Order: sequence, then C-alpha cells, then structure tokens
Amino acid sequence: MGDSADFGLEMKVRDYECDIQGIVNNGVYQNYLEHARHEYLSEIGIDFAEYAKNGINLVVVRAELDYKVPLQSGDTFSVSVKMVRESRVKFAFLQEIHRLSDGKLALQGKIIGTALNPRGRPEIPEQLNALLPAAG
Amino acid sequence: MGDSADFGLEMKVRDYECDIQGIVNNGVYQNYLEHARHEYLSEIGIDFAEYAKNGINLVVVRAELDYKVPLQSGDTFSVSVKMVRESRVKFAFLQEIHRLSDGKLALQGKIIGTALNPRGRPEIPEQLNALLPAAG
Amino acid sequence: MGDSADFGLEMKVRDYECDIQGIVNNGVYQNYLEHARHEYLSEIGIDFAEYAKNGINLVVVRAELDYKVPLQSGDTFSVSVKMVRESRVKFAFLQEIHRLSDGKLALQGKIIGTALNPRGRPEIPEQLNALLPAAG
Amino acid sequence: MGDSADFGLEMKVRDYECDIQGIVNNGVYQNYLEHARHEYLSEIGIDFAEYAKNGINLVVVRAELDYKVPLQSGDTFSVSVKMVRESRVKFAFLQEIHRLSDGKLALQGKIIGTALNPRGRPEIPEQLNALLPAAG
Repeated sequence: MGDSADFGLEMKVRDYECDIQGIVNNGVYQNYLEHARHEYLSEIGIDFAEYAKNGINLVVVRAELDYKVPLQSGDTFSVSVKMVRESRVKFAFLQEIHRLSDGKLALQGKIIGTALNPRGRPEIPEQLNALLPAAG
Repeated sequence: MGDSADFGLEMKVRDYECDIQGIVNNGVYQNYLEHARHEYLSEIGIDFAEYAKNGINLVVVRAELDYKVPLQSGDTFSVSVKMVRESRVKFAFLQEIHRLSDGKLALQGKIIGTALNPRGRPEIPEQLNALLPAAG
Repeated sequence: MGDSADFGLEMKVRDYECDIQGIVNNGVYQNYLEHARHEYLSEIGIDFAEYAKNGINLVVVRAELDYKVPLQSGDTFSVSVKMVRESRVKFAFLQEIHRLSDGKLALQGKIIGTALNPRGRPEIPEQLNALLPAAG
Repeated sequence: MGDSADFGLEMKVRDYECDIQGIVNNGVYQNYLEHARHEYLSEIGIDFAEYAKNGINLVVVRAELDYKVPLQSGDTFSVSVKMVRESRVKFAFLQEIHRLSDGKLALQGKIIGTALNPRGRPEIPEQLNALLPAAG
C-alpha cells in the first residue's frame, strides 16, 4: 500500500483514547481510519455529512483489521487511504497506520463499504462510481 | 453461533453512540464486543484490568466485523461470546449482536487475540489456556 | 437530590471507558449523564431522536460537574435525574452518580438545557413545558 | 482569555464525534479540552502518562462548560489553555474553543484540578507548583 496510497493524514494519539493498558484502545483505530477516509472523500469532492442529509448513506459492510504494534500516549502516526473497487456495488479502502517515530506498521485494515440510496438499496452514486476503476 | 454461545449480554443503544446518519457509528460495535468479552472473562474468573496491572496484557491481533443491520436510537440488543482456540498462542472470540425487537443479526465478528507476558512475548496464561480446547 | 429524583438508571463501567490512570475518563461521565437524561425523557414521552428529526433540538447550554470519587473497572453505579425549571426558556437536570458497592457519591452535575425550534430559536415545546413547574 | 492564553492548538471535527443532531456531541468537548491541556502540560515538561505511571494522578475535581455555538462536520477550531492557581492544592485551566471560519466562541470552560500523590492525597508536585503564581 504505502507508496501507492491515494491519501495520507498525520494525527497524534490523544490520552483519552488510551485505556487501562496504557495503549490506544483497539476500537479507537476505527475512528482514526474513518476520519482519514472522510478527509480523503472530502478532498475528492464527496461530503459524507452532505450525502447523509440527502439520503445517501455511505456504510461499512465489513472491516478487517490487523493490529501490529500498539500506539501509545504521545505517538504521532500517519493514516493512509487507497480506494479500490470490490464489486459492482461495493468499494474498499485499503488503509495503513504507521507510527512516525520509526515508521513501523501499527495497523493494516481493509474496510469494505457500499452506498445506500434514499430507498435503502445499495447503489454507488455516479460521482463516486466514476472514481473507481471498472470491476475486473 | 447463537445457541452454542458461552455467554450473552443485553445492552441498549445510547444516543451519543449514534452518528450523523442516525445509526450507531461503526466503530462503536467494537466497544460493545469488548465489553461483552470482558464481562464473559470476568465471569470465568479472568479480570482484564487485574491482568493488565500484573503485566499480562490480553491484546487483539485481528478483528473481522460483518455489519448486517444498523442499530438505532432506542434499540436493545444482545451480544454473544463464544471462545475458541485459534492456535497455540492465539484464541478467538466468535461474537454476534442481535437486535432484540426482531432477532435480526446486526453484526457478526471474529476477534482474534493473544496474551503478552510481562516480557511482551505471546504466552497464554495457564488459567486461560485450561479453558480452551486443545489445538487441533 | 437522591430520594427526590424523578428517575434512576443502573449502569456498569465498561473497560474502554477507563483511561491510562485506570479510572473512568472524566469526559465519559457526560455520556453517562446524557444516557440517563434521554432514558428519563423517553419514559415521560419525549424522544430525543424523534425531536431531532422534526427539527426540534434539545441542547445543553451549560454543564457543571463535580467529580467526587472516581469510578473504576468493574464498578456498578446509579445515575439519577431530577428535572427543574431554570428560566422561561431553560430547564435544568440535577444529576448524581452513586457507586453501588458503598453508595458513595461519584459525581454531582447540573446540566442546563434549552430547546431550539426549527428556526433555531430557544422555545420549550409545549409537551416539555407542561412537565416543568412554573418559573419563580 | 484569548490573547493572554498560555497555549493554543488547532483541531478539526471528526465525523464520528457528531451525533444524531449533526453536531459535535456535548461530551466530546471535554475530550478536546483534555487533549489541549495535556499537549500544553507536555510542552512545559509535564507528561500526564508518565506522572500516572509514577503514581501521581492529575485529576479533574470540577468542570464548568458553557456551550455557545455548536461545532459541525468539517469545522476547524482552536482550543486555548490558560493555567491559573485556584487554591493551595488546586489549579484551574481557563479554556476556550473558537471556530476558525468566523472566530466565534464555541465553548468556554473552566476545569479545576488537583494532583493526587501516591498515597492519594492532594499535593501539587513541585514542578507544577513552580509554574503557578502564588495563591492570592
């Protein structure tokens, strides 16, 4: 992924995100990934909140997360995003989180999503579809 | 899973867990799953916080989450836990979240974990090991 | 407050709510208080999410929180709610959190709110107004 | 406060921090304030996590939060910190959150804290005490 990512964002661990073990709680990484995805989508002209207001809901259907090295208080890290087509009505985000101090991979994730139209049916909006390569 | 689960917990959606789309944010489900796992571990005599204090850290190494039906404000739901052996130094929790109003499956997850001993090496404590069937 | 509360809810600390210090993070108590308020409002027929959909937003304008005894992993606690009128367009919730093991007061809060009508102006809906004693 | 603040930090709303009403949930502001405080303390040489490991716990005893203008998806904002002495064993952080797009005050807070020594007694560490003006 790394070099070929479509987008990257630098963030810093906030202490309230750490748990009893003194490391970032495993649920928090999904927050990091989501924020990076939404920033990426915003950059390419897709506003998650605006879509929701118009009845088009971008939703996650599956998440695969591999935890490698735990982030801790004080750590800065990068979150990358690479968007690929998963099927006719599904797309996927390949994402990696790297600790900046030593470049180590902290987490690798694949987040598969779809878009629900105002009738609740899976349908990728044209604007998003145009950005995805044709299905294999 | 369902019938053969080792443990189940009933919970209710809290409004601050819902996002702009009016549904439970996808990162929150990991919180639900973790809470149910810790309650289950506590029931079988394993105290997550106590372990952490003693330098034994139960950590997640991989999470697979399939989102089926989104939970909403007001929904009550059950979270099930079934613990299985994944390998000599890994165990897995098969978990399901069902909406109570209609029994629909909201989320299905597999959370793979290990335990790190005080030297940071994977090693399942005897107490936990004894609860897992022998590796195939 | 205690005895004269309008509503009470029992909850249990979830481990992800605890921080590096091994205690519930101070921001989390507002989540506890909000959930108890919404459950109370729901009981008296006021659905926060439904109101929001109809353009009536119940909003917090001031929060005063006194932290007494920190809650920890494993603790169960009660959250009480007492609703009073603060002014013509403001109401307040007097709330207390007590640790169940010994009854100790963990937190005392006063949450002042108002309702914004669809034009964004403070206006308490009739349904809610009828439940509040007349101002001074 | 503004001009005379000791420290300032710029942040951006993350969509998972917004709730059903489409605005940042009121409990999240305490996260913003805490993160800015810890970054400030870190800058002046006080590491919250390190202190906790050494048995010195910086704790909040009271929070007063005035909500002015709600932050929304996409908003960037600044969080200021000004540290003052509250009493011999208490200090306070005067904090403001301003929306960057128009400079509007979104939230004003006063967070009163103390430090608990390893015996659990309030005692401000010398390092921190030296940074606070003498009590009036």
